[in-house]
Amino acid sequence: MTTAWDFGVSRELDLVERTIRESIESEEPLLTEISQYVIASGGKRIRPTVTLLAFKAVGGKEVEKAVDIAAALELIHSATLIHDDINDRGTERRGRPAAYLKYGLQEALVTGDFLFTKAFQIGGKFEDEIVDMTARVCTALAEGEIRQKRHVGDVQLDRGEYVNIITRKTAMPIETGARVGALLGGGRLSEINAAGEYGLNLGIAFQIVDDILDVVGDGVTLGKRPGMDIKEGNVTLLAIHALNDGAVSDRSELIRIIRKRTKDWGEVQTALRMIQESGAVEKARAEARGFGDRALEALGGLPDTEARRHLRDLVEFVLSRHA
Amino acid sequence: MTTAWDFGVSRELDLVERTIRESIESEEPLLTEISQYVIASGGKRIRPTVTLLAFKAVGGKEVEKAVDIAAALELIHSATLIHDDINDRGTERRGRPAAYLKYGLQEALVTGDFLFTKAFQIGGKFEDEIVDMTARVCTALAEGEIRQKRHVGDVQLDRGEYVNIITRKTAMPIETGARVGALLGGGRLSEINAAGEYGLNLGIAFQIVDDILDVVGDGVTLGKRPGMDIKEGNVTLLAIHALNDGAVSDRSELIRIIRKRTKDWGEVQTALRMIQESGAVEKARAEARGFGDRALEALGGLPDTEARRHLRDLVEFVLSRHA
Repeated sequence: MTTAWDFGVSRELDLVERTIRESIESEEPLLTEISQYVIASGGKRIRPTVTLLAFKAVGGKEVEKAVDIAAALELIHSATLIHDDINDRGTERRGRPAAYLKYGLQEALVTGDFLFTKAFQIGGKFEDEIVDMTARVCTALAEGEIRQKRHVGDVQLDRGEYVNIITRKTAMPIETGARVGALLGGGRLSEINAAGEYGLNLGIAFQIVDDILDVVGDGVTLGKRPGMDIKEGNVTLLAIHALNDGAVSDRSELIRIIRKRTKDWGEVQTALRMIQESGAVEKARAEARGFGDRALEALGGLPDTEARRHLRDLVEFVLSRHA
Repeated sequence: MTTAWDFGVSRELDLVERTIRESIESEEPLLTEISQYVIASGGKRIRPTVTLLAFKAVGGKEVEKAVDIAAALELIHSATLIHDDINDRGTERRGRPAAYLKYGLQEALVTGDFLFTKAFQIGGKFEDEIVDMTARVCTALAEGEIRQKRHVGDVQLDRGEYVNIITRKTAMPIETGARVGALLGGGRLSEINAAGEYGLNLGIAFQIVDDILDVVGDGVTLGKRPGMDIKEGNVTLLAIHALNDGAVSDRSELIRIIRKRTKDWGEVQTALRMIQESGAVEKARAEARGFGDRALEALGGLPDTEARRHLRDLVEFVLSRHA
């Protein structure tokens, strides 16, 4: 995939794409087709970019191993996208219908399993420590998803629990990618920890920005209809602020809508408007910036290299993204 | 799990159960609960029994590694049961509601992913060859499922394609378990191949018996309503015989029912009766026997031990089972 922005690892990202493309070859052309479809909708390749840059930042030389694990983590990410869309009834991703709508639920579900398998076929070749780290990411993803479902429509959800959920669902995979990258690159323990700290905070910032875009984003740029979090009852940081310390015109109405099992789009619009007016967006932006700053701070534990500068730029990119 | 029958590995099977139980511990109690529910519905533990016996049959001593891989394969089996039930709209398993009906589709889907992850966390610790074998099983399961869906309602399905599908979905996991067991037990290549040949044929026989029971089985003993294959449009060996060389009273009616997208239970009953009357059950029984015989023959490649005698008994058990 070519991207307009460049963090100095475009050649390595091409290798990641190639590894992914080769691994999803199947005797069943439909499995390959659905896999390709989902991987092409996978977005900005933030995850492999972090892994590759962490590898380089600690002086890693033979990039093949980092490419492999970056591919494995991206395959896990893609598998999760498919299953999450089924679970969240997501209708679009990057302007295209969700895989389960285009290809059918059964076919999509199986393709998710297929992608998990391919990830583990690659990841299983690494030392036990990395197998454990990769498995822990997948466990956290499953636990995060269950935890999120447990809190659907929960207007009492607090910031701590929100951060817990997005850590499992978004930040831990990025943290682990960074850690493994630094580990494979031969980094010292302090450097591996610094890379992990960077990835964790970048991941949280990334998800908060995602949640902001679901409130203020433009459907066309976003490639999906905003308001899906409200629609599905996922209480994000913005709803938490609106409910707890926001200037909401009609708090009980916002609570009613969030709690309601099935919402029409008119109600979703009303909730979005109330959240926008409450000042929650600005508060969330400030918090994303705070996590971004912590990511930048963590970079102090890595040697001053071009890769580190790119990791720095990546923070700004994540904070300023509009899609 | 205690079973009425004993193939000399009950102590080792207890270790498998313990490994499984420990691996599904999660911070999210619901994940553990659904996992336990599904694993308890998992049945007769044929798969780990084969792995453990193959290990012993070649003289394997330290059983822990065989226990671990047997647990991993059983976890994969359980994950597949959950996802297959979602895909096939299966309503019951061993007399209890399918997990997705009891716990919800989203929760069940995520638990399947969780179980895959736990399998790979165990399997990923083995040498690359075994990682590859395990991953190939999962790939085959996904490909078999897609292939089966491709042939839903396909009255032209032939025996070769049917065997291809059940090989991927049922026989390959058993074959691989046998191979890995013999490999870990220190078997020579010829012994590993003999164990694999045994597992493959036992697995095919097992699935044919399963398909027979779906036509003639008793709902109470079976723990689920017979006729699910017909209902879901899965063309099994019995339907193939009825359609191609059976004495079917009204072939065009049978074709009509199999092809019909949504069937009521009256139509399913009609189809079952026609298949029963066609002589297909007897033909399928003979074929299951044939694969069973090939499994017995393959045992000639293993040394004469108590474990081999148990593998022999297992064939008869599989062929004569009623549930």
